[in-house]
Amino acid sequence: MTGKFSDSDLTPIAGGGLLDRRLLLKRGALFAVAAAATAEPARGDAAKPAQAEDFADPAWLHRTGGAFTSYGTPSKYEKYVVRNIGGNREPAGDGVSWTPLEDLEGIVTPSGLHFERHHNGVPDIDPKQHRLVIHGRVRRELMFTIENLLRYPMRSQFLFIECGGNSNAGWHEEPIQRSVGSFHGLVSCSEWTGVPLSILLDEAGVDEGASWVIAEGADANLLNVSLPLSKLMDDAIVGLYQNGERLRPENGYPVRLIVPGWEGITNVKWLRRLHVTDQPSMTRNETAKYTELLPSGIARMFTFVMDAKSLITSPSHGQTLEGPNVYQIRGFAWSGRGKIVKVEVSADAGKSWADALLDEPVMTRCFTRFRMPWHWSGQPAILKSRATDETGYVQPERDVLIKERGRNGYFHYNAIVSWAVDEDGAVTHVYA
Amino acid sequence: MTGKFSDSDLTPIAGGGLLDRRLLLKRGALFAVAAAATAEPARGDAAKPAQAEDFADPAWLHRTGGAFTSYGTPSKYEKYVVRNIGGNREPAGDGVSWTPLEDLEGIVTPSGLHFERHHNGVPDIDPKQHRLVIHGRVRRELMFTIENLLRYPMRSQFLFIECGGNSNAGWHEEPIQRSVGSFHGLVSCSEWTGVPLSILLDEAGVDEGASWVIAEGADANLLNVSLPLSKLMDDAIVGLYQNGERLRPENGYPVRLIVPGWEGITNVKWLRRLHVTDQPSMTRNETAKYTELLPSGIARMFTFVMDAKSLITSPSHGQTLEGPNVYQIRGFAWSGRGKIVKVEVSADAGKSWADALLDEPVMTRCFTRFRMPWHWSGQPAILKSRATDETGYVQPERDVLIKERGRNGYFHYNAIVSWAVDEDGAVTHVYA
Repeated sequence: MTGKFSDSDLTPIAGGGLLDRRLLLKRGALFAVAAAATAEPARGDAAKPAQAEDFADPAWLHRTGGAFTSYGTPSKYEKYVVRNIGGNREPAGDGVSWTPLEDLEGIVTPSGLHFERHHNGVPDIDPKQHRLVIHGRVRRELMFTIENLLRYPMRSQFLFIECGGNSNAGWHEEPIQRSVGSFHGLVSCSEWTGVPLSILLDEAGVDEGASWVIAEGADANLLNVSLPLSKLMDDAIVGLYQNGERLRPENGYPVRLIVPGWEGITNVKWLRRLHVTDQPSMTRNETAKYTELLPSGIARMFTFVMDAKSLITSPSHGQTLEGPNVYQIRGFAWSGRGKIVKVEVSADAGKSWADALLDEPVMTRCFTRFRMPWHWSGQPAILKSRATDETGYVQPERDVLIKERGRNGYFHYNAIVSWAVDEDGAVTHVYA
Repeated sequence: MTGKFSDSDLTPIAGGGLLDRRLLLKRGALFAVAAAATAEPARGDAAKPAQAEDFADPAWLHRTGGAFTSYGTPSKYEKYVVRNIGGNREPAGDGVSWTPLEDLEGIVTPSGLHFERHHNGVPDIDPKQHRLVIHGRVRRELMFTIENLLRYPMRSQFLFIECGGNSNAGWHEEPIQRSVGSFHGLVSCSEWTGVPLSILLDEAGVDEGASWVIAEGADANLLNVSLPLSKLMDDAIVGLYQNGERLRPENGYPVRLIVPGWEGITNVKWLRRLHVTDQPSMTRNETAKYTELLPSGIARMFTFVMDAKSLITSPSHGQTLEGPNVYQIRGFAWSGRGKIVKVEVSADAGKSWADALLDEPVMTRCFTRFRMPWHWSGQPAILKSRATDETGYVQPERDVLIKERGRNGYFHYNAIVSWAVDEDGAVTHVYA
């Protein structure tokens, strides 16, 4: 039953040894063929005949295992897979923690590893005391307890949330030498479930003239942002559950505003107030912060939507390829404007590109995993990935992004990322 | 912008007050209308004008919140949302823990709450010492370290895993009075990622005459099961990741066999051995256990596939409706044979049925959430849900299942579940 491959299977379809993505769907021992062809050590082990000693006889085969647990945790052998915390000195509780993207697979980010961005720490909120109020330009102001909210109709959706400042090291003059998670890890993806906000706004009865809503959180920072009423009516969710269970404290427990595809700060955590009005409030986080000064001297404001972006997580910075072989290049892409329709991969610094395989189902405003077979010859290579979304938007090269946005950039960095693989298989971040 | 509803919106489309599922997709304050019409207390709160005291002034608005965490955990206010552990007295480490289905939403089960079924506890396995061996009727026997496996191509898939013995209390003469999770909670759903087993079997080169594979786990019980080679070649996965991160110990760390749609025991945890052969091994777990004696006196064996099933989780046993109102009936359905194509709900003990709304995307061999608007008048009602999968299989009523399978049943109970709602809104499990 061993599959047979024609030579054409190992014929690159693009520079640097990229192979046809359909090989990943084809039966047969392609990867073993490549391993045998290169006598690569680790794969050599895999090809070693099973001997008696191969059936190792470790202690756990001879004693009763551990007890059942009411709530499980990761293996102690995975204790280094954690969020990398980066706080600011002032004010207290202001900072971020990064999702270790290089250690994850699939599209779900475990809730315990979802990135954090707090402006004043994580409030310890008693759900029985918490209230959500809708007021301002409405026919009748409403107040909701969490118990009330849990009784409304709900819907579930897999959505990414990305901080507007994610990947901002990309603006540096020199390529930062950090793992993909510590560079780009202010983005995560979860299944969010809650009450469509339109249901609650309709219950309040929004005035004809209203056009904006000021959303406020219950942290001591009283973080608030101004959001167009039209978007909130369209697809916003009053989020109560994340990945099946109630929200985690650092992700907004007991209730968080979910604004599909829009920058992280608009997904207001610990949501306590929705003030319906006819203009933005022009608060600090939409004037002094979360705005972008363009070369023209004019600043972009209310840059809500996160544009299409992609990352290769394997191989990525800090990893080492164990010799020439056929590898599966892995990564993921996302867009705040809809579905990802194409991810292209280059192994020759962008001279040539080939389409990657996308894991099904592809969902809107959600991570999409891409996979690509690559025959690495052992020569230096530069890997890139480029995402295209359903609006036709194509992720830009870094020089194009800088030409458009200038050198004052801090937010919304979504340029193509380049990883250099040297002849020893070591992978580093480069501008190319 | 308040939506307007015609009287027809509140006109039931089936007995007991079931409303058109499309109302859940329609703008307008239907649920508020129903609340106002019935002056139901909790919803009365929601309709109360916002007063000064509504903007409660709790402590967390006045102090810096908690620190960033490297790996998050649920809120202390959710500490009762746990797996309910049910162990057997002998042998040690033999038992189950149940997923609290009534506390969850969406389709992802948090890994910490995924059900457990162990025959000898949870082994503490060092991934560096663990080996997976493929031997028997193959061209060359292979041994894989975890490091080897992590370098093969992977794919991700959202799949449920259900214990063959789940819901077996349904065989009792009297309806068990337990929460939906403690009755049916030996089923969970995760995003699993790993290496397609066909790639590894092709590398080993399976003999023409081979037809079965004995899969063995590395717990002290050395649990093993016989599986048809054809299924493993078709869609089995050597699982390394669950919900984005590496497997949890109780779910098979460092490697687990994933057999889409087949009973839990076939998804061998702590996988150490795949013995390719031409016949089943007829071990205890496929002869004395996990078989079913039929009325004919003949026992069903190798009943691998989990048939279509559905559960209403809200309202469900032990919950209480807070007065007449419009409610969203919520639950989920799944089938080991493919996609769920329809879930019908009845509010009059099965006399009439109406189609529920299914959350998108509907994925094969995965949980599918269904939702249904229901105008409860305050009269006693009996709620049921009935799943149909893409093969045309329809979930049976209990009496039909018992007629077919007899009174010796223990495994594969998938009959329609009935919840009785009394005039006080109390919900209990009944046979109806």
